[in-house]
Amino acid sequence: MLNRVRSAVAHLVSSGGAPPPSPKSPDLPKATSALPAAPPEAPRSPPARAERGSAAPAKTVEARASFSRPTFLQLSPGGLRRADDHAGRAVQSPPDTGRRLPWSTGYAEVINAGKSRHNEDQACCEVVYVEGRKSVSGAPREPSRGQGLCFYYWGLFDGHAGGGAAEMASRLLHRHIQEQLKDLVEILQDPSPPPLCLPSTPGAPGSSDPSHLVGPQSCWSSQKEVTHESLVVGAIENAFQLMDEQMARERRGHQVEGGCCALVVVYLLGKVYVANAGDSRAIIVRNGEIIPMSREFTPETERQRLQLLGFLKPELLGGEFTHLEFPRRIQPKELGQRMLYRDQNMTGWAYKKIELEDLRFPLVCGEGKKARVMATIGVTRGLGDHNLRVCSSTLPIKPFLSCFPEVRVYDLTQYEHCPDDVLVLGTDGLWDVTSDCEVAATVDRVLSAYEPNDPSRYTALAQALVLGARGTPRDRGWRLPNNKLGSGDDISVFVIPLGGPGSYS
Amino acid sequence: MLNRVRSAVAHLVSSGGAPPPSPKSPDLPKATSALPAAPPEAPRSPPARAERGSAAPAKTVEARASFSRPTFLQLSPGGLRRADDHAGRAVQSPPDTGRRLPWSTGYAEVINAGKSRHNEDQACCEVVYVEGRKSVSGAPREPSRGQGLCFYYWGLFDGHAGGGAAEMASRLLHRHIQEQLKDLVEILQDPSPPPLCLPSTPGAPGSSDPSHLVGPQSCWSSQKEVTHESLVVGAIENAFQLMDEQMARERRGHQVEGGCCALVVVYLLGKVYVANAGDSRAIIVRNGEIIPMSREFTPETERQRLQLLGFLKPELLGGEFTHLEFPRRIQPKELGQRMLYRDQNMTGWAYKKIELEDLRFPLVCGEGKKARVMATIGVTRGLGDHNLRVCSSTLPIKPFLSCFPEVRVYDLTQYEHCPDDVLVLGTDGLWDVTSDCEVAATVDRVLSAYEPNDPSRYTALAQALVLGARGTPRDRGWRLPNNKLGSGDDISVFVIPLGGPGSYS
Repeated sequence: MLNRVRSAVAHLVSSGGAPPPSPKSPDLPKATSALPAAPPEAPRSPPARAERGSAAPAKTVEARASFSRPTFLQLSPGGLRRADDHAGRAVQSPPDTGRRLPWSTGYAEVINAGKSRHNEDQACCEVVYVEGRKSVSGAPREPSRGQGLCFYYWGLFDGHAGGGAAEMASRLLHRHIQEQLKDLVEILQDPSPPPLCLPSTPGAPGSSDPSHLVGPQSCWSSQKEVTHESLVVGAIENAFQLMDEQMARERRGHQVEGGCCALVVVYLLGKVYVANAGDSRAIIVRNGEIIPMSREFTPETERQRLQLLGFLKPELLGGEFTHLEFPRRIQPKELGQRMLYRDQNMTGWAYKKIELEDLRFPLVCGEGKKARVMATIGVTRGLGDHNLRVCSSTLPIKPFLSCFPEVRVYDLTQYEHCPDDVLVLGTDGLWDVTSDCEVAATVDRVLSAYEPNDPSRYTALAQALVLGARGTPRDRGWRLPNNKLGSGDDISVFVIPLGGPGSYS
Repeated sequence: MLNRVRSAVAHLVSSGGAPPPSPKSPDLPKATSALPAAPPEAPRSPPARAERGSAAPAKTVEARASFSRPTFLQLSPGGLRRADDHAGRAVQSPPDTGRRLPWSTGYAEVINAGKSRHNEDQACCEVVYVEGRKSVSGAPREPSRGQGLCFYYWGLFDGHAGGGAAEMASRLLHRHIQEQLKDLVEILQDPSPPPLCLPSTPGAPGSSDPSHLVGPQSCWSSQKEVTHESLVVGAIENAFQLMDEQMARERRGHQVEGGCCALVVVYLLGKVYVANAGDSRAIIVRNGEIIPMSREFTPETERQRLQLLGFLKPELLGGEFTHLEFPRRIQPKELGQRMLYRDQNMTGWAYKKIELEDLRFPLVCGEGKKARVMATIGVTRGLGDHNLRVCSSTLPIKPFLSCFPEVRVYDLTQYEHCPDDVLVLGTDGLWDVTSDCEVAATVDRVLSAYEPNDPSRYTALAQALVLGARGTPRDRGWRLPNNKLGSGDDISVFVIPLGGPGSYS
């Protein structure tokens, strides 16, 4: 086992260089993904086989059938082929003609430089109507409360070890959120605090006045106050979990291969909810100021959670890994010497005498983009990965991954936004080579070149951000103006204007 | 079980009011603490039995024997009796005459208003010399590296369910830190990065040059860089754990009853390390600006850690508790209805159908100062509590408590400090009724009334802070000028001046 993992890791960590393959994704050959790539449903984009005049061989056509891009790109078969071209890496955006994305949202994407067969990022942008279920209290619905709710939705899904999970999430996650919100339609529109308890079944005796649903008798002197906002957060959290469970259920039938990071924005009743599971990132640029709206979940940022789990459930380590962290690999000849280590409780380092079981491979190792859980995967939250196992082993990695997002809330009504205030979402292809400050500078530079009421300015900005991260082909690689390497990863960017959502709803 | 815990909680949460007993400590009669109160060693302060002319009955004398105050207060027997007087609540400080505390540190304390027999806070302030062990590399010590290290140390220990743990920690925790640093004396004084690996035993062949101790061959492409600072953090973290383990070992022989929060400051080689386990607090006030140096660890702030542990190790819940959180106690008649809940993964709330096991008592319940783990204890980190069990049950609570501090580092050399810049440490008796801003205002008000070079100004400031939190007796309680209730808890405060540590070392 030791040699096996060691050689896998040696491969993983030595793969840096130009042009850079993304070190985040578990390299496919090393992760045992039992099922071949094929989407759970026919993708909405026209498959390449429909392309007229194509001379592509049958094999390519078959492979293309599993490949789709977001429907809002409205790609023709020829456009889809260009979007799938690793050599040209043409930036894709929705066409300037035709229906715009809600709020005049800007979007741009580009495929990777060859690290995976297709672009494994996916995106979704929808306006979703939520019709309430039959009155939750069972009483006939009052007309004033019978209104459904609308939410605006943006999602970026960065796939790894296959595109299936990202594609499935891009098609279905907002439906799960819609489903979770159905029970809340009345409650969220009622200004009084949410009822703590509801009758079991619609139709059961009860009043629709939530305040009557709770018996006043309680052995606690106080009741916790639960806000409307925290109900929406809970709905999004549970939707992520249900999406992940659906992937687990359907992976056999529909062959959902791989996993994905998910970065999702929901706008509902004046508030923006940013939910992140993975290493994508969201920032607001408001009047030039940067407001972080997410943080990344990686083996480094979640080290202590991972180590604690390995410590409490050592059976998950399969006798192959140690939950302790060491600053480098221990050599067998170093047995008995004293090495720096950290356990699940420590943020500092200390020396310990090396014992036999310390020679096991560390659960968490590496630094930065090369950090890995179980020598395999570089992100610790997201959807899917139910088949992911340690190289040449049956040890599952999924127990260490969390499907739960961190949700941050931004109240749009608390500040008067101008047309230059935007929420920028990007997959790690953007952020690996672009700092928050550089993004803010590009926001300023590009938007000031357009009239404030020109709706195409946000697409232009998204394109500028993608181009700035991709660079241009030069010296056997994609390079930025400063001659550093651009991102060889898939890059996807949403630019959501905050200055006037009210007028769009 | 349900009724038993419920009545215990009803007692706990209904005990608010004037004068307020501290809701943090588990009330002694409810926590099964098997051993009577008696110190592990003779306290350094003179016991009351030595008091001349005392007419106290034998019983009181015996109880007093277990009571001590910090030695630096230099209390006479009469002074000790006044410090133990719940009615007068006289503020105690080191005498103006005689040796000052290091750095002219200010200190003040006051006993509680009757919530426990004695003042269960303890404090320590020491200068500790660390002599290196025989050269870690085994080579003869070079003269230039043979110097030991000095660190300055301040500790506040807020006891609960008895004073034994706080007293033991105040006497010994800095010795554990000293012991942990012994191995690091050479390394911390060597400007090169710490060696990752050391030979096993002093005297073994090897060089004293740390860079030679590590074989260059490594299967990882890079080694993690470990800083000197993180070694000190690790030493403090491990010292807390070893202190806690010593309490567990000696609780039978020496009868260490109860537990304590620990807030500790170490100044070493230009940096201030603030380690906090519990709900005491440290802030720096620098040029009027507030810099938080700790955060509190309570059932609310650590809810998800506690719930995760209960979820992963359900046997720790003993079939009596549920790891789910509910906003109020569920009534048996509500079975089948839908109630708001949060699990270990959620920050938002959602509804779930109430099942039989949801009627168990929640692992975490209550809000603010009334929040409790297992209906018993209101702090989730600290030392001791090895005997603490759920009321009328054998279920131990210790597995849910962490002895590990969070350590924050402040580099004193990065900023030129003036004599008005201070680090303020206080037990929750201070912070329950005083905001950070109010403390900063008092810092400004008191220090500006003294000459900058008057060393008594920091003691005056500590006294003002304690008095401001205690208030004065009025309307059947201790009241603040705004007529709100003052703190009825023990209150202890250190004021550490930052403007010139160099001149004291």
